[in-house]
Amino acid sequence: MSEEKRTDKTIVVFSADLDKVMAAFNIAIGAASMGFECSMYFTFWGLNVLRKENAEAPVKKKDFMSKMLGVMMPKGPKKLTLSQMNMGGMGTSMMKMRMKSKNIMQLPELIKMAHSMGVKFLACQMTMNMMGMEKDEFIDDLSYVGVAGYLGAVEKADCNLFI
Amino acid sequence: MSEEKRTDKTIVVFSADLDKVMAAFNIAIGAASMGFECSMYFTFWGLNVLRKENAEAPVKKKDFMSKMLGVMMPKGPKKLTLSQMNMGGMGTSMMKMRMKSKNIMQLPELIKMAHSMGVKFLACQMTMNMMGMEKDEFIDDLSYVGVAGYLGAVEKADCNLFI
Amino acid sequence: MSEEKRTDKTIVVFSADLDKVMAAFNIAIGAASMGFECSMYFTFWGLNVLRKENAEAPVKKKDFMSKMLGVMMPKGPKKLTLSQMNMGGMGTSMMKMRMKSKNIMQLPELIKMAHSMGVKFLACQMTMNMMGMEKDEFIDDLSYVGVAGYLGAVEKADCNLFI
Repeated sequence: MSEEKRTDKTIVVFSADLDKVMAAFNIAIGAASMGFECSMYFTFWGLNVLRKENAEAPVKKKDFMSKMLGVMMPKGPKKLTLSQMNMGGMGTSMMKMRMKSKNIMQLPELIKMAHSMGVKFLACQMTMNMMGMEKDEFIDDLSYVGVAGYLGAVEKADCNLFI
Repeated sequence: MSEEKRTDKTIVVFSADLDKVMAAFNIAIGAASMGFECSMYFTFWGLNVLRKENAEAPVKKKDFMSKMLGVMMPKGPKKLTLSQMNMGGMGTSMMKMRMKSKNIMQLPELIKMAHSMGVKFLACQMTMNMMGMEKDEFIDDLSYVGVAGYLGAVEKADCNLFI
Repeated sequence: MSEEKRTDKTIVVFSADLDKVMAAFNIAIGAASMGFECSMYFTFWGLNVLRKENAEAPVKKKDFMSKMLGVMMPKGPKKLTLSQMNMGGMGTSMMKMRMKSKNIMQLPELIKMAHSMGVKFLACQMTMNMMGMEKDEFIDDLSYVGVAGYLGAVEKADCNLFI
């Protein structure tokens, strides 16, 4: 493979801050719409972006700490808050209203659009292990990978961001 | 264009934390002084770095929410605070005194120097729309672009950071 | 040198949050185990990761502000806390216990492993100057560089992250 062919983009989504995750998806969608392959690697807090809102946690299997983490961390994109000016949720709500009135796509729509445009979602297996999360708590069409899987995507990329 | 020629650097300045923005400019200036082209894409909170300190907001045109956001967010580089140890502003003030005594350039000087060395400043149009900001609130010599403009700069770069 | 040979990775470790620093080392170790050269550039808060736990500060030489900064900032990897859910240290302690029970390597082990695998540690000289830190406060085998040293490593890299 010649180096000239490297045009993919990768984004490590480490954060679960609404503003940072929206920036990640806006870049990914921009890249996809320009015809570039794009992989997003969701790790640590960022893995919460991929949680299903109404997933029944497989309660029996979970130990106490896993249950508690599952409750404390945001369950899907609608639960994310701003990294700044959250003000107990009020700032986040106001910014969402604002984006709606300005016809700016909200995060759940951004995720659907990225998926429909072929952006690849990689879920970090080590984080799942650490947080005690199971595959049936996540949205569909994920690849479950380790850091080697992420670095594999990097090998075809000319732009790699950590968000 | 051959891949060998890719030596530009791009930096997404998403944050408006004083420490992170200073790191961004130090890298940009370092790259420029080594002869590399460098583009900084200011988006979300980072767009506040480019606001003029004394800009008269075009008040009539602004809706209530835009005015409020304009007041709540930092108006230019002198208003930025540290991401850690800010301690109600005291930590930031002390760090600035410290940098002065150590002959470390402050942010306003870094911005001027980067500009004079040819570092390109790209302002995110979507953020301007969301925050209700107008061009006359910003410093001069900016390019107003969308995410496609940023990704265009990436195509000539061999190093792309998100800060 | 042909562009095809660029396979190194560089990571700017700006943050001293336990979770982010662990992510940085996991990526570095993953890259090293796949045979890639990897350089980590510790700057600003991130420089604290490299501090020796029991270093005797060369007290006589230090001015008041340097001493105070030395006390306020975390002294080595064991003192780092989570960026989220720290809860006055309780969250960080619980997450460490959790990682232990899941056989996930802790940060001090990650640092040792990265070092033994040949990952290069670059310490930012400007940060040392700003924070008033001396070489004998840091672990061994560091390279002391400026931003030009970091950008030199970038020239051989195909993946550059800012964490």
